[in-house]
This record gives sequence, C-alpha cells and structure tokens, in this order.
Amino acid sequence: MKTRSESKLFGGLQGVYSHYSECCSCEMTFGLFMPERSGSVPLLWFLSGLTCTHENAMTKSGLQAWAARTGLAVIFPDTSPRGDAAADSPDYDLGQGAGFYVNASQQPWARHFRMWDYISSELRELIAANFPISRQAQGITGHSMGGHGALTLAIRNSEKFRSVSAFAPIANPVASDWGRKQFDAYLGDNRENWELHDASVLLKRIGYPGTILIDQGSSDQFLDLLRPQALLDSIGRRSQPAKFNFRAGYDHSYFFISTFAGDHVRHHARVLNAL
Amino acid sequence: MKTRSESKLFGGLQGVYSHYSECCSCEMTFGLFMPERSGSVPLLWFLSGLTCTHENAMTKSGLQAWAARTGLAVIFPDTSPRGDAAADSPDYDLGQGAGFYVNASQQPWARHFRMWDYISSELRELIAANFPISRQAQGITGHSMGGHGALTLAIRNSEKFRSVSAFAPIANPVASDWGRKQFDAYLGDNRENWELHDASVLLKRIGYPGTILIDQGSSDQFLDLLRPQALLDSIGRRSQPAKFNFRAGYDHSYFFISTFAGDHVRHHARVLNAL
Repeated sequence: MKTRSESKLFGGLQGVYSHYSECCSCEMTFGLFMPERSGSVPLLWFLSGLTCTHENAMTKSGLQAWAARTGLAVIFPDTSPRGDAAADSPDYDLGQGAGFYVNASQQPWARHFRMWDYISSELRELIAANFPISRQAQGITGHSMGGHGALTLAIRNSEKFRSVSAFAPIANPVASDWGRKQFDAYLGDNRENWELHDASVLLKRIGYPGTILIDQGSSDQFLDLLRPQALLDSIGRRSQPAKFNFRAGYDHSYFFISTFAGDHVRHHARVLNAL
Repeated sequence: MKTRSESKLFGGLQGVYSHYSECCSCEMTFGLFMPERSGSVPLLWFLSGLTCTHENAMTKSGLQAWAARTGLAVIFPDTSPRGDAAADSPDYDLGQGAGFYVNASQQPWARHFRMWDYISSELRELIAANFPISRQAQGITGHSMGGHGALTLAIRNSEKFRSVSAFAPIANPVASDWGRKQFDAYLGDNRENWELHDASVLLKRIGYPGTILIDQGSSDQFLDLLRPQALLDSIGRRSQPAKFNFRAGYDHSYFFISTFAGDHVRHHARVLNAL
C-alpha cells in the first residue's frame, strides 16, 4: 500500500492511498479519513456515483466534519478499475467510472470489473490490516450509483455492514436506463442475476435488520432514472424499518449531499458506536 | 446578469451567475450562496487563491454550512479575467487564475486585469442591485492569494468591509516570489505601488478598525512564500487587535480551510449581524 497524500482535517487525518488489487487486477486508489480517536475505530463506507473517483466525495461531501465529531472513520473507494489495462467504453455510464458495484461475468469486463468483491472483501481486509479500524462496526452509504451499491451490498451482507443509508440511490436499476445497459454488459442477459443487484427487489425479498435512511431531492433532475417509487413500494410491502426523506427543492448535486451529510453520519454513528 | 445554475443548499440557494464586466472588459462568473433569511442579508466575500476559479471554494470549503446557520450570504468571485480576449501567461502564478487583486497598469495586463476595482466596486454594486444584500454589513476573507486580497482590500476600504479574516494569506508579497513577479508584471517597477498591496506593510501603516482573524497551518508547504512572520511583526508593532492561530500540523489545502471555516464564519457573523 502506498501513501499518496495525507492532510490534517478536523483534528484527524485525510489520507489518499493506492495498492495493487488482486481482485480488479490493477492499481486502485482510495481516500480514508481517520478521526482523532484511540482504539478500534468504527468505519463508514461512502460509495460514489457515475463519473466520480475516490476524490469527489472526499473533497465535496463535508462528511468528515461530522465523522470527526462522532468518532467515525470514512473510506472513499474509487468507482471502478482504472488505467489502460482495464477495459473502458466511450460512454460516461459504462466502464471506467461506472463499475456499478458488481462482479462482471462478461467480456471485456470480467477480468477487472469486480467491484462487489473489491468492496466487500479485498478492500475491507486491506484497511483492517493497515489501520486501527473495527472489523465489527462498519456501515455503508453512497450517492446515486453509490447509493445503489450501498443498499445492495448492505442487504446481502448485513453482517458486514451493520448500518446503511443512501443519498438519491439508483433504486431500481433493472427497470432503468441506469442499470439495464450496464447489467446487460457486465452480467449478461439472465435477469435473475440482475435482480441480485437491485435494491428494490432485494429489499422486498430479504429486508435489512436495521433502519434504512434514505434522502432524495424532490427536484432531482434524474428522478425517472433513480426510481425512488420502487424503493418506497418495497419499504411499504415489507414494513421495512426506514426513514425516507423526500427533500423539497433539492437536486442531485453534492450540495444536496453536504446538506444532509450530518444526518447520515449521525444515523451510522448511533448504530456503530453502540456495537 | 445570467443565471448559470442554482441548487438548494442548507435550506438556502447556491447560485452561479455571469455578467459582462465593464471593469475587466470580459464576461465574469461568480458563485453566490443566499441563506434562507428575509430582509437585508449580511454578506461575506471569499477570495480564492492561485489557479482557482469561482468554483473551488464554493464546492470544497464548507463555508455555506456555517453561513446558513448564522444567516450570512457568501460570494465566491473568480480570481482573474478569463477567456481568449484577456492576456495570459503559461505560468500558473501569472495571468488567468492569478489576478492578485490589483489594477494592472502595465501591458498586456492593463485592459482586463482590474480585480481591485472589480471586487471593491463593480461586483459590489451588481449584487446589491440584484440580490437582497445589505450594503452596510459586508465582511471579507480568502485563502492564500485570496487572503492577501481580503486583507489589503479590507485595510484600505474598512468602511466597505466591516470584518476581515484570512486563511494562510500571502502576507508580505513585496518580499516573496508570490508577489514580486506579479507586481512587477502588473504594476511596474515602482515599489511604492507594490506596498499599497502588501498586507504587512499596510497593516503597520494604517491598521484596521476591528479584530483581524488569521488561521495558518504550521505544516503549510508554502510558509516561505506566505511569510506569516511579517504579518505577526506588524500586528505586534501596531498592537493591532487580532487573533492569529498557528494550527499545528495543518497544510495549505482546502482540508485546512474547511476545518476552520466555522470559526471564520462565526467571526464575521458576530460583527455583521450586529450592524
């Protein structure tokens, strides 16, 4: 693991690190905020959206201000494999910057695009080995494509992710142009495999053993692609403990995220600091 | 004036606007955060540093979280004229992105590079005419080159800028490579003109009728160019009311700014909300 940079932030340390990923067969970069706290530190994962790297949320979300106050670490992974070796597409919503948090089974993606395993196993082990991070007290959140990743990873790995929330998640990708195109390319045409990566389908089927927090802007320019109505339907049918806030007038930007960052960090801190 | 974008943020509105500047003879862009507040709103100016546009601090400083709580508007001007018409240089620290908040008298800069008048007069009038901004209650801050601009503009226009602070300002440009090169290019070789744009010289000579707040990271990678010791010397010689915080371990980044953004906004709010 290589240290790319470290800056003091809110009394803690904002680092950027890179390492060779066996899982993705390429060098991967992530940001990690460690608060000023001794002992084993609870960790919040933040998964970013389409076109983002590890950097966008690290510099624009304002999450660390709240993480410092509540004693959480925050990790900001990249959204896909990178570099000349990994496949890519000219589209902003397929390939690099658009990993969709799945393990690709189709060519040319299968070798590198394994973000599901990367997040839930490899990176999890790497940081537990290199930082004083709690293995037990970990939660996950994310924005847009990253909200999709957070919800699907948490629902299927609730023992690893003890708290979950999302900002404007892609809530029902099997019924959206943000989903069908990518799942077809990465997973092939068997829709049963797609449904394993659809938060609305999974929630209805499996549920989550904790309260899910969702914030969604009512003026989000991508409402038709995000399909929050499908997630609300699943919450209703299952009586899933959840707080779903439709926020009047907010759009899809980081300005929306930063406005509600404090609510989300406190949501995770309540669960994780009690473990 | 054209609206480029508007996003809801912390209950208020983060806008980006552009307009033709008579002063700079080109189109200029700025960000303005308006809090949710009725009546005439106090305004905090944030001047950015070398290479920045209106956007960096708007998306990375976290100032608006605190401005929303204290009822301040925040304006984020650009750091120089822009575009093919305006002169430029291949250097990052001269020309576009490096206006240094002076009125250039030398060629090829004199026609466009008039940031002193742009900030203190033209943009001030434009926003007073277009937004419910108080003309009386305005303060100014900034980072690095923008900290230099904030201090020099406030010291020489204390009736316009009733509160002042700075993050890691270029404190003594007449004795720094961040200053001599630019002043020579923009202002010519008469050092008396340079001294009108040096915060340490001005503070010793004129002082400021209020407490000046400065934060400076002790691990700032540019300490030798910023020369905080000159500003401390002026504060000491004049017994200038000031709070100068040398912050252990912080560097020159926006992580440093966001850590202390709350302190600075509260400093300005105490003065401006009492006017």
